[in-house]
Amino acid sequence: MKPASEFQLIAHFVKAFEAARGEVALGPGDDAALLRPRAGEELAVTVDAVVEDVHFTRAFPPAAVGHKALAVNLSDLAAMGARPVAFFCAVALPPADRALLPALARGMAALARESRCLLAGGNVTRAAQLSVTITAVGAVPRGQALRRDGARPGDLLVVSGELGGAAAGRRHPQDRRLRARQQRPTPRLSLGLAARGLAHAAIDLSDGLTQDLGHLLAASRVGARLEPTRIPVQRGATLGEALSGGEDYELLLAVPPKALPRLERRAGRLGVPLAVVGEVTRARGLHGLAVTSPPGHDHFA
Amino acid sequence: MKPASEFQLIAHFVKAFEAARGEVALGPGDDAALLRPRAGEELAVTVDAVVEDVHFTRAFPPAAVGHKALAVNLSDLAAMGARPVAFFCAVALPPADRALLPALARGMAALARESRCLLAGGNVTRAAQLSVTITAVGAVPRGQALRRDGARPGDLLVVSGELGGAAAGRRHPQDRRLRARQQRPTPRLSLGLAARGLAHAAIDLSDGLTQDLGHLLAASRVGARLEPTRIPVQRGATLGEALSGGEDYELLLAVPPKALPRLERRAGRLGVPLAVVGEVTRARGLHGLAVTSPPGHDHFA
Repeated sequence: MKPASEFQLIAHFVKAFEAARGEVALGPGDDAALLRPRAGEELAVTVDAVVEDVHFTRAFPPAAVGHKALAVNLSDLAAMGARPVAFFCAVALPPADRALLPALARGMAALARESRCLLAGGNVTRAAQLSVTITAVGAVPRGQALRRDGARPGDLLVVSGELGGAAAGRRHPQDRRLRARQQRPTPRLSLGLAARGLAHAAIDLSDGLTQDLGHLLAASRVGARLEPTRIPVQRGATLGEALSGGEDYELLLAVPPKALPRLERRAGRLGVPLAVVGEVTRARGLHGLAVTSPPGHDHFA
Repeated sequence: MKPASEFQLIAHFVKAFEAARGEVALGPGDDAALLRPRAGEELAVTVDAVVEDVHFTRAFPPAAVGHKALAVNLSDLAAMGARPVAFFCAVALPPADRALLPALARGMAALARESRCLLAGGNVTRAAQLSVTITAVGAVPRGQALRRDGARPGDLLVVSGELGGAAAGRRHPQDRRLRARQQRPTPRLSLGLAARGLAHAAIDLSDGLTQDLGHLLAASRVGARLEPTRIPVQRGATLGEALSGGEDYELLLAVPPKALPRLERRAGRLGVPLAVVGEVTRARGLHGLAVTSPPGHDHFA
């Protein structure tokens, strides 16, 4: 038998998480996990990585790295209106960083439990740099997923929460509130479910409002008029950070005016603030905004 | 809009692959892909990463890196008896390596096409080191997956192909045949499907026969007697490499004697050689083998 390291690491990691059950018919430990989707549902699947010195730094507590790696994926499920089911976690790390794994797993496991998302499989490998790549699987009734391409002229553009906090947190790491926005984003899962059947389109705000709105408009072949004064800027952040700082992981929804009161009532019950920041137009392009702000947050540049 | 790099890279990458269809109701481009499983089937899901200087070196042509990254995951689906459906590909790379991506995508796309596995989503991020993390999704009729834990005393241990070639290829990079075994493993997908309903248990040989057999025996709570002289050693490789070299990506099956002739006929039609290398015993542990060989290939050590 192998002198252990890799398998011991995996065994310890897995122990932090709840056991497989329900739709996860077989969890970690075999060549593959087995998922048993419910009748009438389709699966939303997304993959996203967080890499040291790109998406997080050594200043992040390892638990925050684990939290963020899962949160950015759950945010994609939220934007599809999907209910979290399971996730797969591939960790790459320098052997000297092994000691970080238990805390990283704890941070991830806390969010997984809260989100009812079961660890179904994973992989640990050696690498020059710590990174966590997660594939998350959600379920949504067939045909009801919130996509990017359904926005129609006249729809209102609705944003959850407040924007710019994560970018401001990068600038002010000593501010506890802003640092939390950067290190521990909250995926808007309940809002995503609540928006199903009401919103025409949705996207999560990972790269910044201007850029992510651009993706939604391009996919829907429409334009928009933004009202900058109505954009909910987090206290301590600038309008520029709210527009293009990225990493806020709030939702942007295109909602027909008739459906807005119902969405607002549902969001109110969930304690999620909503702001109408503009309107979808037939004319392509983005209006009402002097685009002097820098382009969105580019994790590659 | 973002000045492009990340999104252009993704767009170029995706273009190498076939468009989403069938069970992939929505492919790359939204917050998540949408998979529509067929009634009566469950999904086998696995994740595996290949990292530069751990699983491949600069001596690998980029197309081989793309091939191997997908192959090691398809091999896990083969070991479950699953039919490939879709995969998700997360690439991390130094900006200077962008030029490698088209060839990497081509090598991956050729294997994807051949295996009828559709690219359904992915992610590109900057990193210090090139790595490719793939999550593969297969389908299997409910309850029919080949697991590790079903081996029973009296089952024959059957290995496909020849072993040790990948390890010998690491030793003899100038040997074209051995180098192909290391760089371009062939996932035994058809054999995995053929073994459904016949084999009691299966595992793919990624870490070496001794070690992977150990996993299968531990999961099944049984032991085994190996017959070293019957192990199919690849020409140019040593018995030690066949036992513990790893990365051969052949299948190890536990087959009741009554089912062997039928499996052999099916494998014969597929052109896949099979060898009976031992037998499952009630007595735990591994017999018939003086374990003087080094332990299995450890990607972490």
